[in-house]
Amino acid sequence: MGGDNAPDAVVKGAAIARERFPQIRFLLYGVESRLKPLVDKLPILADCATIRHTDDFISGNAKPSIALRQGRKSSMRLALDAVAAGEAQCMVSAGNTGALMAMAKFALKTLPGIDRPAIATFFPTRRGESVLLDLGANVECDAENLVQFALMGEVFARTVLGLARPSVALLNIGSEELKGNDAVRGAALRLKAPGSPINFHGYIEGDEIGAGVADVIVTDGFTGNIALKTAEGTVRLF
Amino acid sequence: MGGDNAPDAVVKGAAIARERFPQIRFLLYGVESRLKPLVDKLPILADCATIRHTDDFISGNAKPSIALRQGRKSSMRLALDAVAAGEAQCMVSAGNTGALMAMAKFALKTLPGIDRPAIATFFPTRRGESVLLDLGANVECDAENLVQFALMGEVFARTVLGLARPSVALLNIGSEELKGNDAVRGAALRLKAPGSPINFHGYIEGDEIGAGVADVIVTDGFTGNIALKTAEGTVRLF
Repeated sequence: MGGDNAPDAVVKGAAIARERFPQIRFLLYGVESRLKPLVDKLPILADCATIRHTDDFISGNAKPSIALRQGRKSSMRLALDAVAAGEAQCMVSAGNTGALMAMAKFALKTLPGIDRPAIATFFPTRRGESVLLDLGANVECDAENLVQFALMGEVFARTVLGLARPSVALLNIGSEELKGNDAVRGAALRLKAPGSPINFHGYIEGDEIGAGVADVIVTDGFTGNIALKTAEGTVRLF
Repeated sequence: MGGDNAPDAVVKGAAIARERFPQIRFLLYGVESRLKPLVDKLPILADCATIRHTDDFISGNAKPSIALRQGRKSSMRLALDAVAAGEAQCMVSAGNTGALMAMAKFALKTLPGIDRPAIATFFPTRRGESVLLDLGANVECDAENLVQFALMGEVFARTVLGLARPSVALLNIGSEELKGNDAVRGAALRLKAPGSPINFHGYIEGDEIGAGVADVIVTDGFTGNIALKTAEGTVRLF
């Protein structure tokens, strides 16, 4: 029920996914009287989409803490519960990101060794595309958070981009060791330490994101969000 | 003596400035045997450029603290001293930015009420151009620093862009009051308080920089540097 043009855009997206991945099946959580007419218009969804009715949903401006307490019967929460119960293998939402992160962390927990989820995207580059994270789930990050984002980004690049040994860079304001803040410098020390599982590229500056010099680019959620949106705004300016 | 293709590019830049501003005069600090042939090739500089010889200069990778202690006879420092002594009204350098900030703060001090200098640039927008600061002089900033950058940026926009009452925005990861970190939220409270001299626009996100929604955009030096360079990299990607 969330995101721009919901739920129409969401149901149409499900149909596109079905075309690309014929084995996919959907549990659609939301207001049945609104979802059913949309699903009925798309025959490709007839045998693979099950509607699970709920009247409650999380609004786009709800505070994450309120959503967590009051949204136990919301479409977002019930969809996450389906993953937690093993009924679904993943959950997709275009809704309130802060609420989604908070609820996902509560309902699904994180893997051992990972304290906080991160938001990742593909960033187009001159070489192809890179994985950029975090994009806003974590406004303030310490070195440990950044190291964990590096691990998650590395696994993501291996699994989704199919790279055997993706390179991982830290976004910084210079390439010299002394540049940056404590979190970035602390993370660099650990990522390049003997025994680190990461193929660490070192620091990169903002202009190297688009150049594609690293497969995974790690930053805090404040900087990552602003870098991504500044790139979007620059594209629109062109 | 600093920057790419120095001192050639610096001397050529002086000639271009002289064409645009006929009343300008230069004190050129550096190695006379290298500067004189360059100046002699440009007749437009003959009656307006005075070379002040020094053998010492600050290298591009010198640490600011070392430059400050050991660079007292450097071209950069002597040029700043000329401003401090009233021999020059401003100083231009393409050299080591960190050293320049540290030396400028030491030799020139800041105005009352301003603790730290900031680096500003013009950012092209769909409306014209905006002033963006800080771009890397201050890696970690508190609310007070951001308020001071807002004041400096506002004066800069009035004086240099000639705007009667420039609007000032804080760069953030959302437009809602609760978004962002303590520094950004604290600065917003003060910039919009009764009696604030600032025409405060509120928060803007990264994609609104290029849209030109505010005349002055304030952020910490870490974020500003990465936003600017990400925009540059995106342009190059195009």
